[in-house]
Amino acid sequence: MKLARVGERGSERAVVVVSPDQYVDVSAVVGDFDEKFFGSGGLASLASTVDQCSDRRFDLGKVRVGAPIARPHQILCIGLNYADHAAESGQPVPSEPIVFTKSPNTLIGPDDDVHVPRGATKMDWEVELGVVVGRRCRYLPDEGAAREAIAGYLVVNDVSERAFQLERGGQWHKGKSAETFNPAGPYLVTADTVHDINSLDLWLNVNGVRRQSGSTKTMLFSPSFIVHYLSQFMVLEPGDLINTGTPPGVGMGFRPPIWLQPGDVMELGVEGLGSQRQHVVAAP
Amino acid sequence: MKLARVGERGSERAVVVVSPDQYVDVSAVVGDFDEKFFGSGGLASLASTVDQCSDRRFDLGKVRVGAPIARPHQILCIGLNYADHAAESGQPVPSEPIVFTKSPNTLIGPDDDVHVPRGATKMDWEVELGVVVGRRCRYLPDEGAAREAIAGYLVVNDVSERAFQLERGGQWHKGKSAETFNPAGPYLVTADTVHDINSLDLWLNVNGVRRQSGSTKTMLFSPSFIVHYLSQFMVLEPGDLINTGTPPGVGMGFRPPIWLQPGDVMELGVEGLGSQRQHVVAAP
Repeated sequence: MKLARVGERGSERAVVVVSPDQYVDVSAVVGDFDEKFFGSGGLASLASTVDQCSDRRFDLGKVRVGAPIARPHQILCIGLNYADHAAESGQPVPSEPIVFTKSPNTLIGPDDDVHVPRGATKMDWEVELGVVVGRRCRYLPDEGAAREAIAGYLVVNDVSERAFQLERGGQWHKGKSAETFNPAGPYLVTADTVHDINSLDLWLNVNGVRRQSGSTKTMLFSPSFIVHYLSQFMVLEPGDLINTGTPPGVGMGFRPPIWLQPGDVMELGVEGLGSQRQHVVAAP
Repeated sequence: MKLARVGERGSERAVVVVSPDQYVDVSAVVGDFDEKFFGSGGLASLASTVDQCSDRRFDLGKVRVGAPIARPHQILCIGLNYADHAAESGQPVPSEPIVFTKSPNTLIGPDDDVHVPRGATKMDWEVELGVVVGRRCRYLPDEGAAREAIAGYLVVNDVSERAFQLERGGQWHKGKSAETFNPAGPYLVTADTVHDINSLDLWLNVNGVRRQSGSTKTMLFSPSFIVHYLSQFMVLEPGDLINTGTPPGVGMGFRPPIWLQPGDVMELGVEGLGSQRQHVVAAP
């Protein structure tokens, strides 16, 4: 199944995409795709909810698409999770996941404008596979339990400001958390409908030029490894978002580096999970 | 005014402490002390709400006290914000705030048990002045605006696991986010009732032995500096919590270092903001 949220920003409605151009609005039954929904088993009964709401079927073409999940309890990110990206960043391949965070209010829709923060000089792109946590995770016993705890997958753009991230005090959160820095969607594809999560192509274009090409094949740590690992250090809540790292081709890796500017257009996608398109604009 | 939340964990009620041993339950009017409360001006009308609820006055002695705010959108922390603590940590004094995060679900009451995470070897204490954000903060123009955006202050214990923080991949979130790692309270003291936030004593005992002594006088970056600064990099939401850094005397700074063990008791406080007492227990 493909979960999405449509409507104006701040008042999106939970829907299920049932064909390439139609969705069923399930918001009256499920509320939102949030911590409560995932934590109370809403996903397990969603197919029957769609049947129940079949008279609320609409065309997808005419509506804004938001992030497919409500603002989560936390957004966790894995750093340098593709060997080639670590190399282009001039950093050693990590022996275990590097964990950092983004402010949850960075979450926006897949085609919303992305703001260049005031004072930014080194703004960069990162196509990533996003993972949504489906249940509370605390000291999970193994990767099998982690696999069962994953609600689904989605495209995310882990937008970054490298000067804020790397030249302003050492911890990365500061360069990852400007408003609009986490486009997500267009939909959350439930885990049961993804054939092989460890073999999906990822790509990103800037102004029509291919900049990132990769495959989850070359991830150092798989989604289930990551979820199991994180649950040893903290408690994951239902609906939490994990950005699992980016393949090679970020702006920082070019010689000379390429930074995003107002007027640029980013297009990105992950095989089977849809694609995004964002205009870069100066922060108002 | 002193805002608190009392009752069993997960079902705390919003109250105002009106005398050393009594509170007025305002939950029927305000809901919870959460993003919605702070964001909709609930604080400005709280005095009249207390009058309105004066028939719901109860004794404080008989009830569990929770964290004085609901789980926030984010918990931000400032690292090495006291020159002496930077020195004992063997790190240079930062030229601007170091920003890291804790998972919001680490928040617990001031006297709740603190868990030693499974696999922990270097668990440490940190008494801190906590700041609660009172309104949405985005590119605040100056420190004056930041001062007006602060709802109030509280005692926090920024519990840490130093091996997870410093020896497992470089970013600090991993060593700051275990369950129970953010005792807060007993109450939130509104900003208008704190005489001089830049001159408050802080202290922490472990098993009756004084380990930390300090004063906000020696902070490198004041609360209003921090709130203004953060708002340039991210948007702060009403109800967000900021842990502003710890004075000298953490376990890591002793030679040899002292780490928390099950059975230990931490007691800590900040002048005018009350005190906390936590038993350290093994994570169940």
